[in-house]
Amino acid sequence: MKLNFVLAESALELIPKEIGNSPAVLSDSRRREVDRLQILLDRSFHHSAMARLKDGEKRGRPDLVHAALLSLTGTPLFLDGQMKVYVHTSQEVVLEIGEGTRIPKSYLRFRGLAEKLLVEEPREGLVKVYPAGMKELIQKVVVPDLVVGLSTQGAPSSPEELAGTVTKAKRPCLIVGGFPHGHFAPETLRLTDRLARIHTRPLEAHVVAARVVYEVEKAAQGMND
Amino acid sequence: MKLNFVLAESALELIPKEIGNSPAVLSDSRRREVDRLQILLDRSFHHSAMARLKDGEKRGRPDLVHAALLSLTGTPLFLDGQMKVYVHTSQEVVLEIGEGTRIPKSYLRFRGLAEKLLVEEPREGLVKVYPAGMKELIQKVVVPDLVVGLSTQGAPSSPEELAGTVTKAKRPCLIVGGFPHGHFAPETLRLTDRLARIHTRPLEAHVVAARVVYEVEKAAQGMND
Repeated sequence: MKLNFVLAESALELIPKEIGNSPAVLSDSRRREVDRLQILLDRSFHHSAMARLKDGEKRGRPDLVHAALLSLTGTPLFLDGQMKVYVHTSQEVVLEIGEGTRIPKSYLRFRGLAEKLLVEEPREGLVKVYPAGMKELIQKVVVPDLVVGLSTQGAPSSPEELAGTVTKAKRPCLIVGGFPHGHFAPETLRLTDRLARIHTRPLEAHVVAARVVYEVEKAAQGMND
Repeated sequence: MKLNFVLAESALELIPKEIGNSPAVLSDSRRREVDRLQILLDRSFHHSAMARLKDGEKRGRPDLVHAALLSLTGTPLFLDGQMKVYVHTSQEVVLEIGEGTRIPKSYLRFRGLAEKLLVEEPREGLVKVYPAGMKELIQKVVVPDLVVGLSTQGAPSSPEELAGTVTKAKRPCLIVGGFPHGHFAPETLRLTDRLARIHTRPLEAHVVAARVVYEVEKAAQGMND
């Protein structure tokens, strides 16, 4: 079993052209001395400009993506090369995290890396970057034999039970939303074999990722014993 | 059972006076337009100046503290008011995180908050701030009936087994190091009843926190069923 983990529809993108001339973006660009279209969209700085964006409430949260990536890449499963991690963004770009990649723990370093990757897209390297929607990513790149989406809209399931099912597959794929509010798009939902909710509370993506991966590790360990 | 969780000897502090005139600190202060002694010490920016600091290799990693706090405060145990979180810093200051406090997920907002708290110390509010060493924090504030330190120097223990022990206590306290390298100071070690290691690999503080708290939740749930 090798686990695939996809952060779907993630709120990670460069400033979109339609708000490139807004005061919030121009002042951030001047302050940072970075081209205004080469800056990560971030609600902390660009809130006033984001009202105009389509699906704006799901966008501009690189901090959530960073926290989820740290949570995933800090696990023994990832460190042992037993999990592949993909970030699919709301703008239909995929960042494929190579084995052994160390995601910067400092947010400012992460921001610099993400801006570089998205500006240079498409790109080879430890983190590959290419345009792809969820359907293409799942059906052509990951090609899993089981797809489980984690969502508050799913059926209640304990992480242990889920992990038991996941580790029985050969190329399972877990999907968690990389956005702050709302639910998976219909296209993402159509790709899942099962939709599961692991807690009565809605939980942050990084918490869901930490718990499910931990249980998958334990289940996989149990199978090897 | 109410769990206490202490990030010990954490690498969170303002620029110490002895490096306040170093070029790295002065340029960061100018760029940010913040007084140089009211800036968080951060190895990402002040590396060149930090060689002179005592125990410098354990200091200046606010990113690690932030990741661990997000990991802890995103759990149902914290959200349900069943866990109290304390950050003890290497400079002997304690940040006591009040119930229901939402730690900013954006690092830049977290940095602003941490700088404000440390500048205004001592301070009341959702996050209380006061001077205290580990001994004072544990013996006078937390007053636990069981103290378990989590460390690569500990005896191998599974998180489940640990959680079983922890939930049998009334006021258990878990301690994880809030620093990047090295081990607990002797004073911290003397306060522990037990020192445990939860994985053969050394793991980040946020990963250890996520796993142990999750198992404590499960064990506590099992006792209530």
